[in-house]
Amino acid sequence: MKVAVIMGSTSDLAKVEPAIEILKNHDVEVAVRVLSAHRAHDALKDFVDTLNHDGTDVIITAAGMAAALPGVVAAMTTLPVIGIPLSGAVLDGLDALFSIVQMPSGIPVATVAVNGSKNAAHLALEIMGIKYPELRERLNAERRQMHDDALKANADIIAKYEN
Amino acid sequence: MKVAVIMGSTSDLAKVEPAIEILKNHDVEVAVRVLSAHRAHDALKDFVDTLNHDGTDVIITAAGMAAALPGVVAAMTTLPVIGIPLSGAVLDGLDALFSIVQMPSGIPVATVAVNGSKNAAHLALEIMGIKYPELRERLNAERRQMHDDALKANADIIAKYEN
Amino acid sequence: MKVAVIMGSTSDLAKVEPAIEILKNHDVEVAVRVLSAHRAHDALKDFVDTLNHDGTDVIITAAGMAAALPGVVAAMTTLPVIGIPLSGAVLDGLDALFSIVQMPSGIPVATVAVNGSKNAAHLALEIMGIKYPELRERLNAERRQMHDDALKANADIIAKYEN
Amino acid sequence: MKVAVIMGSTSDLAKVEPAIEILKNHDVEVAVRVLSAHRAHDALKDFVDTLNHDGTDVIITAAGMAAALPGVVAAMTTLPVIGIPLSGAVLDGLDALFSIVQMPSGIPVATVAVNGSKNAAHLALEIMGIKYPELRERLNAERRQMHDDALKANADIIAKYEN
Amino acid sequence: MKVAVIMGSTSDLAKVEPAIEILKNHDVEVAVRVLSAHRAHDALKDFVDTLNHDGTDVIITAAGMAAALPGVVAAMTTLPVIGIPLSGAVLDGLDALFSIVQMPSGIPVATVAVNGSKNAAHLALEIMGIKYPELRERLNAERRQMHDDALKANADIIAKYEN
Amino acid sequence: MKVAVIMGSTSDLAKVEPAIEILKNHDVEVAVRVLSAHRAHDALKDFVDTLNHDGTDVIITAAGMAAALPGVVAAMTTLPVIGIPLSGAVLDGLDALFSIVQMPSGIPVATVAVNGSKNAAHLALEIMGIKYPELRERLNAERRQMHDDALKANADIIAKYEN
Amino acid sequence: MKVAVIMGSTSDLAKVEPAIEILKNHDVEVAVRVLSAHRAHDALKDFVDTLNHDGTDVIITAAGMAAALPGVVAAMTTLPVIGIPLSGAVLDGLDALFSIVQMPSGIPVATVAVNGSKNAAHLALEIMGIKYPELRERLNAERRQMHDDALKANADIIAKYEN
Amino acid sequence: MKVAVIMGSTSDLAKVEPAIEILKNHDVEVAVRVLSAHRAHDALKDFVDTLNHDGTDVIITAAGMAAALPGVVAAMTTLPVIGIPLSGAVLDGLDALFSIVQMPSGIPVATVAVNGSKNAAHLALEIMGIKYPELRERLNAERRQMHDDALKANADIIAKYEN
Repeated sequence: MKVAVIMGSTSDLAKVEPAIEILKNHDVEVAVRVLSAHRAHDALKDFVDTLNHDGTDVIITAAGMAAALPGVVAAMTTLPVIGIPLSGAVLDGLDALFSIVQMPSGIPVATVAVNGSKNAAHLALEIMGIKYPELRERLNAERRQMHDDALKANADIIAKYEN
Repeated sequence: MKVAVIMGSTSDLAKVEPAIEILKNHDVEVAVRVLSAHRAHDALKDFVDTLNHDGTDVIITAAGMAAALPGVVAAMTTLPVIGIPLSGAVLDGLDALFSIVQMPSGIPVATVAVNGSKNAAHLALEIMGIKYPELRERLNAERRQMHDDALKANADIIAKYEN
Repeated sequence: MKVAVIMGSTSDLAKVEPAIEILKNHDVEVAVRVLSAHRAHDALKDFVDTLNHDGTDVIITAAGMAAALPGVVAAMTTLPVIGIPLSGAVLDGLDALFSIVQMPSGIPVATVAVNGSKNAAHLALEIMGIKYPELRERLNAERRQMHDDALKANADIIAKYEN
Repeated sequence: MKVAVIMGSTSDLAKVEPAIEILKNHDVEVAVRVLSAHRAHDALKDFVDTLNHDGTDVIITAAGMAAALPGVVAAMTTLPVIGIPLSGAVLDGLDALFSIVQMPSGIPVATVAVNGSKNAAHLALEIMGIKYPELRERLNAERRQMHDDALKANADIIAKYEN
Repeated sequence: MKVAVIMGSTSDLAKVEPAIEILKNHDVEVAVRVLSAHRAHDALKDFVDTLNHDGTDVIITAAGMAAALPGVVAAMTTLPVIGIPLSGAVLDGLDALFSIVQMPSGIPVATVAVNGSKNAAHLALEIMGIKYPELRERLNAERRQMHDDALKANADIIAKYEN
Repeated sequence: MKVAVIMGSTSDLAKVEPAIEILKNHDVEVAVRVLSAHRAHDALKDFVDTLNHDGTDVIITAAGMAAALPGVVAAMTTLPVIGIPLSGAVLDGLDALFSIVQMPSGIPVATVAVNGSKNAAHLALEIMGIKYPELRERLNAERRQMHDDALKANADIIAKYEN
Repeated sequence: MKVAVIMGSTSDLAKVEPAIEILKNHDVEVAVRVLSAHRAHDALKDFVDTLNHDGTDVIITAAGMAAALPGVVAAMTTLPVIGIPLSGAVLDGLDALFSIVQMPSGIPVATVAVNGSKNAAHLALEIMGIKYPELRERLNAERRQMHDDALKANADIIAKYEN
Repeated sequence: MKVAVIMGSTSDLAKVEPAIEILKNHDVEVAVRVLSAHRAHDALKDFVDTLNHDGTDVIITAAGMAAALPGVVAAMTTLPVIGIPLSGAVLDGLDALFSIVQMPSGIPVATVAVNGSKNAAHLALEIMGIKYPELRERLNAERRQMHDDALKANADIIAKYEN
């Protein structure tokens, strides 16, 4: 199980790290890169070309503002590409969301919420789950745990309000 | 290769059909359903439970307005779920886009463009491509064809303007 | 007089507590739950089924981002369901507002302002007021008090500026 | 069972009529008025004062643009007030939605979708259902019918795609 | 020269005070009130009725969220009514802007920028300037002073960057 | 009573004409000009300079897109300037609304609704009403007529629904 | 004087043609291409590399939705790149506007209005005017003509309304 | 190489200074002015008239809110005019963006990102690069350096995550 995580700028790292952590916690081999579609296109192309042939399963991309990176990567591969719109100083990430989700036909980007790094990782895991049954089992178990945690939180609230 | 396509209302069918057609053209077994998260939740749950165990690889969902369907389906499965925001009479699909893409952590929906049915199908194909190498080969070939078609369109423009 | 208050996450509690407080101040029996539509659907269904038969009058729901909870609850009951859109880290609650207010025909959610917990409680009281005349009398009295307080605030301003 | 339906302008009638029809189909006594908050405030006040004492259960209001009507009516009564934001020539009803849903604390308006007249009626019925058990029974039956219709639509789609 | 300044809530006072100060600096008689359209309608009506006959020239109103106050006041008078949209905790005042500026035909509100109290005062002064020639002379002089100040600021920048 | 009406382009005329008609119906002397802030600034300056000294009371301006005209005119005069944001092919006039209403301190523009020509005229009349008592009387009479018409429309609805 | 005009899709041609026509009317050598950043990146790169060395002065780009083309081209050259956001079926071009204008530091795109092809051409001409004095003279003459045309339009309006 | 930088208010200086610094670092002669389109139009006109004849190549303008300055300057010259939309207290600069980018045909403004001062400078340099080959060489070298820096940042990330 291999995932590449590509962000547009080193300054995006803090927002992207939760995705890396989740992937590593699931024993996914993670390649992390800072490769702007605008500033390092050739190195990005070389990297994605490598991903196309090294057994990588999913590519996660993250970018803010006029976020071309996810779409540019999607155009370089037929691997599934996930895009995380990052919020910047203004516009609350709506610029990045539109720049990532509104892709033209034929070159899809699987877009998650603004700053939604955790869900980018979860989506990558689900995608790989169709190929790696043991991963899917683990995801199913985590869902049951999430469900149990949710019920525990609910029980805590009941205790808080109804004793 | 099996994909389920679930829409919230029969009136969504015209916007969703391009996805079905693309999938069928790639020899994907497609199960099409109209199952609103709000009006047919139990049948939806039964259907997704079936999908969880019948070898389905990807679930495509489409809904407009307060589009709960994609997220509700995503919560019923660890299969990858794709969401297509559909535009309605007002707001240009921004309501559906926000309702689909802004999912909380742990339950991702892979969101595509407003009315982006074709890309939903392409994304499903790319996801399955990590499991079915022959499909990935076909997608790569189609990309090359897309590239050739793009060059042909460009040649036509050159001919139009520079003769 | 019984009201259920359901929020999607324990982290929503601070924003929802004003509603609980107002309801309790009016001697309403309040059942508080944290039951995400996505993470605890079955427990949510069980809870709402109980509400459908235990004399509950109104259900208040609160959720942020892709706020499916209010609509999902509305689909489980013909009790009146009130939805409070909660603001998150970005987009100022516009995502939750659209996800709650733009419900399809047949499954209404009574939506109040972003973070409008107080009005959710007041709306619940007004709804119960059509059934419990003494509550309606109390609401009428509070309105008169609100009016008197408003006149007092105005008198304070007059004093401040015109002495 | 009595509901008043107040719109701001005669030109709103076509968008509001579905609410009236649904209410009448449920044997609700419906009083329909065109009473702008801006152009006919005194008559509006007189009418709402009457509603406050004639057994009316719910007030439905509909207005577009700077839609003050729902909030102004809500300030005249402690009956539950439902607001329908109507779309105008520009802005897709977002102006009316904000003008109706963003009410200050203490004066709630139960807001439904832009042009959501049908849901305004359904919400009114659900509110009255807490007082009139036979109505609630009928709503429950309709929900079951809605569920059956949804399953029928799904069966039609299955037949269409899988025969 | 008489201007009334009406705000919807005492909490609006800090944002409205710049208008009051500018008016007083121009020897305008200013009546300040806190009179919500929703919470103190009758007192508001009485106050505006008084303004209609006491020689008041302009009414400035300020409100946030579902800002009905400016339009409601405009409906009570044929005096010119200025509306200041105030920003609240979310939505940056866009809710108040739409609620104030999108008035229906026949009942205008002269809308200024979000939180634009200073311009509300300046607009009131300009309106009164058509009636009071000495005020208009003073406004013209202030414009010349504003122009001179602008040139001084420019000279400061020139000195800063080009010495 | 003199009003100048300035629009940015001849193509705006159809949207502005209702303002001209209302003004003429009130025996206002109306000077109509097409003078773009961008394409005819000197002529615009000459015209506004004339208005500053020929007894003009109010200036109405209308422009779409990056609507600089209202603010530029406001900077040339201390007469009250009304701005009508016009909708264009995209963005529903939100561009023009922001360009007109968000004026910096000291140079106000009295902004009305998108395409709100009628209210621009009514606002101009109200402003002049503080100077011309007979006009204000007429406006008050029209308001009473508007009120009567509103009651007539309401009576028609009552007749339609309750006979 | 050489300008390249690159659009993302043949379907954009109708919206881009006004730019081509204006450029040709000014005796600019125009190279027109359809080269999507996503579908034909290598050919785009080759073309822009050629432009970098063939005396081209300005590159005009046009794209809709997640409009990566302008930024991608800007990253391939230090020639000035102009971007035209094109409106699509939904969102009125706001997606393309954000995708083009919100470029990160170091890679600018000179953005014009949504569908603003004419201004893209005019901006290209102005840019070239700093290098080709005779072009700048012609642009100055056209401005004078534009000014004269504006005065003529104004004279027509004066005649229409004041005879 | 001469560039003029004009901002609407001294308070804009901190946001504009990065542009000035970049230009000076490239040995561009920079004339900095604070000249509001609204408060200092004649001085602005005089200054731009001077720029039209003193060898200035590009004019950079910056303004917030109803940002008329860029368009007004663009109307005074056929030099290329760059506009920087500045964010204010509310609306995240969307008001300024619309006020600057949505210019009517014939008077273009080359718009950059909200608060995008650095890109305004880079765009000015690129424009001048078509006239001054040594500048273009320097920009090309900087691009190569930007590329090298990007690769260095990527190498740092690789080292961080993969050692």
